[in-house]
Amino acid sequence: MWNKNVETFLGCDASFEDADIVIFGAPFDSTTSYRPGTRFASRTMRAESFGLETYSPYLDRDIEEVNVFDGGDLELPFGNTSKVLDIIKAAAKKILDSRKLPCMIGGEHLVTLGSIEAAFEKYPDLHVIQFDAHTDLRDEYLGEKLSHATVMRRIWDLLGDGRISQFGIRSGERSEFIWAKEHTNLNKYNFEGLEETILTLKGRPIYFSLDLDVLDPSVFPGTGTPEAGGVEFIELLNAVYKVMQLDIVGMDINELSPVYDPTGASTAVACKMLREMLLAYRKK
Amino acid sequence: MWNKNVETFLGCDASFEDADIVIFGAPFDSTTSYRPGTRFASRTMRAESFGLETYSPYLDRDIEEVNVFDGGDLELPFGNTSKVLDIIKAAAKKILDSRKLPCMIGGEHLVTLGSIEAAFEKYPDLHVIQFDAHTDLRDEYLGEKLSHATVMRRIWDLLGDGRISQFGIRSGERSEFIWAKEHTNLNKYNFEGLEETILTLKGRPIYFSLDLDVLDPSVFPGTGTPEAGGVEFIELLNAVYKVMQLDIVGMDINELSPVYDPTGASTAVACKMLREMLLAYRKK
Amino acid sequence: MWNKNVETFLGCDASFEDADIVIFGAPFDSTTSYRPGTRFASRTMRAESFGLETYSPYLDRDIEEVNVFDGGDLELPFGNTSKVLDIIKAAAKKILDSRKLPCMIGGEHLVTLGSIEAAFEKYPDLHVIQFDAHTDLRDEYLGEKLSHATVMRRIWDLLGDGRISQFGIRSGERSEFIWAKEHTNLNKYNFEGLEETILTLKGRPIYFSLDLDVLDPSVFPGTGTPEAGGVEFIELLNAVYKVMQLDIVGMDINELSPVYDPTGASTAVACKMLREMLLAYRKK
Amino acid sequence: MWNKNVETFLGCDASFEDADIVIFGAPFDSTTSYRPGTRFASRTMRAESFGLETYSPYLDRDIEEVNVFDGGDLELPFGNTSKVLDIIKAAAKKILDSRKLPCMIGGEHLVTLGSIEAAFEKYPDLHVIQFDAHTDLRDEYLGEKLSHATVMRRIWDLLGDGRISQFGIRSGERSEFIWAKEHTNLNKYNFEGLEETILTLKGRPIYFSLDLDVLDPSVFPGTGTPEAGGVEFIELLNAVYKVMQLDIVGMDINELSPVYDPTGASTAVACKMLREMLLAYRKK
Amino acid sequence: MWNKNVETFLGCDASFEDADIVIFGAPFDSTTSYRPGTRFASRTMRAESFGLETYSPYLDRDIEEVNVFDGGDLELPFGNTSKVLDIIKAAAKKILDSRKLPCMIGGEHLVTLGSIEAAFEKYPDLHVIQFDAHTDLRDEYLGEKLSHATVMRRIWDLLGDGRISQFGIRSGERSEFIWAKEHTNLNKYNFEGLEETILTLKGRPIYFSLDLDVLDPSVFPGTGTPEAGGVEFIELLNAVYKVMQLDIVGMDINELSPVYDPTGASTAVACKMLREMLLAYRKK
Amino acid sequence: MWNKNVETFLGCDASFEDADIVIFGAPFDSTTSYRPGTRFASRTMRAESFGLETYSPYLDRDIEEVNVFDGGDLELPFGNTSKVLDIIKAAAKKILDSRKLPCMIGGEHLVTLGSIEAAFEKYPDLHVIQFDAHTDLRDEYLGEKLSHATVMRRIWDLLGDGRISQFGIRSGERSEFIWAKEHTNLNKYNFEGLEETILTLKGRPIYFSLDLDVLDPSVFPGTGTPEAGGVEFIELLNAVYKVMQLDIVGMDINELSPVYDPTGASTAVACKMLREMLLAYRKK
Repeated sequence: MWNKNVETFLGCDASFEDADIVIFGAPFDSTTSYRPGTRFASRTMRAESFGLETYSPYLDRDIEEVNVFDGGDLELPFGNTSKVLDIIKAAAKKILDSRKLPCMIGGEHLVTLGSIEAAFEKYPDLHVIQFDAHTDLRDEYLGEKLSHATVMRRIWDLLGDGRISQFGIRSGERSEFIWAKEHTNLNKYNFEGLEETILTLKGRPIYFSLDLDVLDPSVFPGTGTPEAGGVEFIELLNAVYKVMQLDIVGMDINELSPVYDPTGASTAVACKMLREMLLAYRKK
Repeated sequence: MWNKNVETFLGCDASFEDADIVIFGAPFDSTTSYRPGTRFASRTMRAESFGLETYSPYLDRDIEEVNVFDGGDLELPFGNTSKVLDIIKAAAKKILDSRKLPCMIGGEHLVTLGSIEAAFEKYPDLHVIQFDAHTDLRDEYLGEKLSHATVMRRIWDLLGDGRISQFGIRSGERSEFIWAKEHTNLNKYNFEGLEETILTLKGRPIYFSLDLDVLDPSVFPGTGTPEAGGVEFIELLNAVYKVMQLDIVGMDINELSPVYDPTGASTAVACKMLREMLLAYRKK
Repeated sequence: MWNKNVETFLGCDASFEDADIVIFGAPFDSTTSYRPGTRFASRTMRAESFGLETYSPYLDRDIEEVNVFDGGDLELPFGNTSKVLDIIKAAAKKILDSRKLPCMIGGEHLVTLGSIEAAFEKYPDLHVIQFDAHTDLRDEYLGEKLSHATVMRRIWDLLGDGRISQFGIRSGERSEFIWAKEHTNLNKYNFEGLEETILTLKGRPIYFSLDLDVLDPSVFPGTGTPEAGGVEFIELLNAVYKVMQLDIVGMDINELSPVYDPTGASTAVACKMLREMLLAYRKK
Repeated sequence: MWNKNVETFLGCDASFEDADIVIFGAPFDSTTSYRPGTRFASRTMRAESFGLETYSPYLDRDIEEVNVFDGGDLELPFGNTSKVLDIIKAAAKKILDSRKLPCMIGGEHLVTLGSIEAAFEKYPDLHVIQFDAHTDLRDEYLGEKLSHATVMRRIWDLLGDGRISQFGIRSGERSEFIWAKEHTNLNKYNFEGLEETILTLKGRPIYFSLDLDVLDPSVFPGTGTPEAGGVEFIELLNAVYKVMQLDIVGMDINELSPVYDPTGASTAVACKMLREMLLAYRKK
Repeated sequence: MWNKNVETFLGCDASFEDADIVIFGAPFDSTTSYRPGTRFASRTMRAESFGLETYSPYLDRDIEEVNVFDGGDLELPFGNTSKVLDIIKAAAKKILDSRKLPCMIGGEHLVTLGSIEAAFEKYPDLHVIQFDAHTDLRDEYLGEKLSHATVMRRIWDLLGDGRISQFGIRSGERSEFIWAKEHTNLNKYNFEGLEETILTLKGRPIYFSLDLDVLDPSVFPGTGTPEAGGVEFIELLNAVYKVMQLDIVGMDINELSPVYDPTGASTAVACKMLREMLLAYRKK
Repeated sequence: MWNKNVETFLGCDASFEDADIVIFGAPFDSTTSYRPGTRFASRTMRAESFGLETYSPYLDRDIEEVNVFDGGDLELPFGNTSKVLDIIKAAAKKILDSRKLPCMIGGEHLVTLGSIEAAFEKYPDLHVIQFDAHTDLRDEYLGEKLSHATVMRRIWDLLGDGRISQFGIRSGERSEFIWAKEHTNLNKYNFEGLEETILTLKGRPIYFSLDLDVLDPSVFPGTGTPEAGGVEFIELLNAVYKVMQLDIVGMDINELSPVYDPTGASTAVACKMLREMLLAYRKK
């Protein structure tokens, strides 16, 4: 007990130098239009991961076999959205420059933009796979360009047509669904079509962004905008395994808002999903 | 901002005159035997509908394409059950007399009786479709004729044999199930048999009463009497679409009790289901 | 363990015959206009009284020295207000006829009317002391004569001028405060004037009705209509001791609504207050 | 109302002598490593069973047709684990000696050990069927032999190889899964293989231990360690019916922790499952 | 029921033209560093004001005697702090230009800056009275100039020395307390010194900003940063009456975050305090 | 961000070597008879201390001026009470041997016994000051010698008569109060008599044990056994300052159970109280 109190996700204890994966939290929710609170996701997941085993019977693999470093949370200036994105980008860039996988815990979905900007600089042929209930394809939201509701549109500004594959989408404006037909690979409601997409993306650098509200609210009520009609845990787990077979160069898990689920089940779901993502990753 | 603060479900903004559908709340829960609180359903649904899109990707239809007027909540005298039913009946009658669809937000299930009395006066060949976890067929409950547990029996008193179709039923006394065999079209647990029923009801005037506790408590815990073993959201959604193809002359959605679900997921489910009911309705 | 599971408040285990005090619950909240839930007060108090000692250091007296019988809850038909009051009256009458003290756990405040009707039949010179945040003096509420908001007015209908003393009152319509000036002894905000009132009531038969919302919401948030600006626990405790020196012939404690206070502190307050009332009672 | 307030599960009112099944609570959670609270399961189930019908449409059977005695909760000394197990064993033994079925409501899963010790004394060829998310097969946990995480290992100490069948398991250390391959019949994730197991166990005395966390947290969040990826209610119900066809000589239902599910749905699930277990039991 | 559903605080129903006071909500909490959620304060206060009487026995005055218009909430772009302040300023300016009193419901405390900017343009000799637990005097917070933690410093930038009087302050950095000695009239912990301050401010135009976290968390836990050691409700009420005797030209009430207080008591406190502020206001 | 994620109370960052005070958590609640959950106190206080300033305006002192090391939580075997106490004793002994002040965060009150055993070995003339709602003086509880309800009796076994001063006591069995008259300095309800006690203890080594349930449940509902009628925050704060003037050789703060207070106010109170204890300590 004479060491300082270190708290990491699932007790991950690699040093930064030895790590293949670097976890960091991006506790930001300032553009959330409905119920804020995702800023507490990363710290709550660290604390509650105590209740989770380090071993996965699904993958027959233990977190001790993976080199993961948890660097804690970024310090982000609430209310200055563009500066927040710059800080996230810089953190992701440092990890990528060290040839490690950045694994970000959001925060609202907008944080993904910073991380993808860094990945895109290193991998100009970057493709993005997004699991989400919402399109996030508005061009503006309440007059703003930078918002959780516009994040995939801003990413499209960077990457262009044909680079974004969306799954599980079940909410948005009509105009977003129409726009998506020409610009993204949007798949509604579930993971139909995922295997086909996987085949076309083999060998390309992939950024995987998991908005946990793709899950049904019965499984994951602890989020800002619960959207009925989502997928079950096992469906998501199997879809995640498929994605993780690709050449993942960056990933994030976002939109857990612990305060809205007093049962703790949403946090438990997020922790288990992140464990499986870490265990399924194979360094190329 | 110089107008008064109008709050309607999903921002529905038709005038009464232009409307095809008229929403009103019936915030009554005085006969609830277990956990009261449905009186707050309508106002909570209005407030929380802010988090829901007006567009349905399922139906490719937007609330702006439908003419809905939300008249707010009826003022009901708690504790005087028969007067409450009279007020509800009068409201539904006025809407029907204006050749519009009454869409009531309960309240406990007893409120359906008032609305059906009005519909029955206008449509003597009225049929009722009920989605519910409970039979609601007792003749008396705690010595009372008017109760959430007797509501379908009172409706049978009006309509007689063969007019009531019940789906999803998984709770009741044995005597209710036996009684139902001769008097109603009772279907247990789920929506098996619904398509067949739909066929036989084509062209008849239908009142559709949706008791949301037909859903499994994992999907919809925010209700007075959560009853394990119910249907999933998508199952219900598809069943609702089928019913809405009939000649609907009145409808209600009831038994949301927001206080029992602090996650807000139950309210989000109710809002989305009501949106789909409104969007699926086609004026004859 | 071969006996049936008996659950009573604080383990009170006198037989009915031996008892000086008879507790019964009146789980009714059908006229509650704001947040219902008081129907669960009595059963929650029984369950949670497990966390409370039977000994009072304030009075140096133990519940084992008092003969209390707990008869459980009345079975009340929700939605039929006048029948509910009849059942309560009958129960109180039986207890009074056995020369015991009826001690009712509400329920909304309207339940007091039934109990006082019984006491008034036996004691025509009955006086009532009410601790409450609200006047409860409306003549009608939402068109109804029987309501939690009219209960003291109905009691005045029975007893007439000068028989009702109210303390802690801080909410009502202006007309109620004006009416009270001529008909009741209304004391605002706290217990100023209580000692004087006690002096004038010495020797008369007193019914004591404790609406727990007289307490400040910081002390007692678990109630239907929390009203800021109330009294502290110790202030109330001392006032209760003063009242209990009089010739109490009936008493009740009401308006605990456990679901609204997830901390359980409101229930703990109600239990302790009831323990002190039982311990402070001296049979004449 | 002149009888003492008896509170039993679902109003079961047989006398001990007439009963075929004896319910008792074991409110113990002292070795719980994550979130305690199961000590409140039995009393909460009794109180909330008020919201549940006594009739099962699944089995067309009513609790009135079954002779069940509810003896309330054992008084257990918190913090002295071995004495707690002795008390449980003694209670189960008395019930077994009276040729009745002990039906224990936990409590954390460790309580099962006491009950099985009693059953094993009477039935040396006892077999155990465990439904659970967790292996519970550690030999020690935090240096202790007696823990919720070691309970099935201790039971193996008694019964030996081939006597324990585990279903639904999805969490544990790798070493536990390896150990299980040689010593227990461990089935992962769901009830695949159950029918086969049932066939091999026909005619043998069976103790059935139902850890409710085998359910998915969406269905049953009110437990100490919610573990994503579990079974649905109906899956569990059907599996329970299969088990109950065997010669059940003892059973328990455990790990409900009501405080973690403010919706009450977890308690409703537990109550309904216990009702079905009681109704499905047939005395041999 | 044929009018649209208007929802205003306490049923205030003056037209804008007739009003002396104009209420508007500023649902912004993007710079909140700890627990966000104040964005829901205004709409929750409107909904819950249903439980509050319109009459004040303290002031013997009814809301019907005051001309109050409630214009609903401003639409604010989350994440763009300076634009938010511009919108607030514009709204307050319009109200002031119409010779009415702007009464803003926050939101986090930063919203006060926009409203004071408008008031300062019209009243160059404006003085500010702030009731608050926190100094809010940082020059920067996490690198930002515009933050809930810097709001009074930004107001000082406008108004200069000697224009800001702070009461109830019990939290801040040492440097803020030191800075305040030269630049503001900072009074620690409670309202000592208020009467003296009132005397010196007689006849000057006053903006009154009430951060409700000046209350003790026992009274008002529903706020972003509960700070132990605050004032009681009655202390605050009496202090508010004193302030309202001055020439108030603008006012706000802020930092209610309803989601953190499931009892609803914090919202009830905020509603009652706002009612008293409205009733205590006298147009000059 | 390339360092591991260190989480300490209030960011205390001294090394063990440089520290004057050493904080450690004792997350144990296995003997809790009513509502468990104190095991989460220390980790929740660390996480939530983020919302608290490091500077005290009361003492004009900043945590940066004090050398505090936070060593995190002890790993304790649930269910083995005596081993738990041994581990606590060993930890406290190491800190004392290094001539530092042990500052333990409980846990249930029983943990105090381990820490006092260590202090007593080093300081045979040790005196104990206990602030508490409960006597904790039972000789046995449910047949057990080691329990939260017996902890002060066990400490008396060590120290003997006249060494224990108790304040704020308002709950216990009559026999405990009688026993205390001869063996401890028991002061009921509040801190009357504290100054006198302080005078007699000047110069002696003092262990200070703060059971936070001495506070009124309105201030501190987040505890296992809320006991109405306690002290206010400011009363406690002033009493703590008085105690801290003595020669403190060990201290603890216990009985916070965060899950029972969803508002977080109880945790905020505990954090602020601990900050003041740390700031008020002066090394001799």
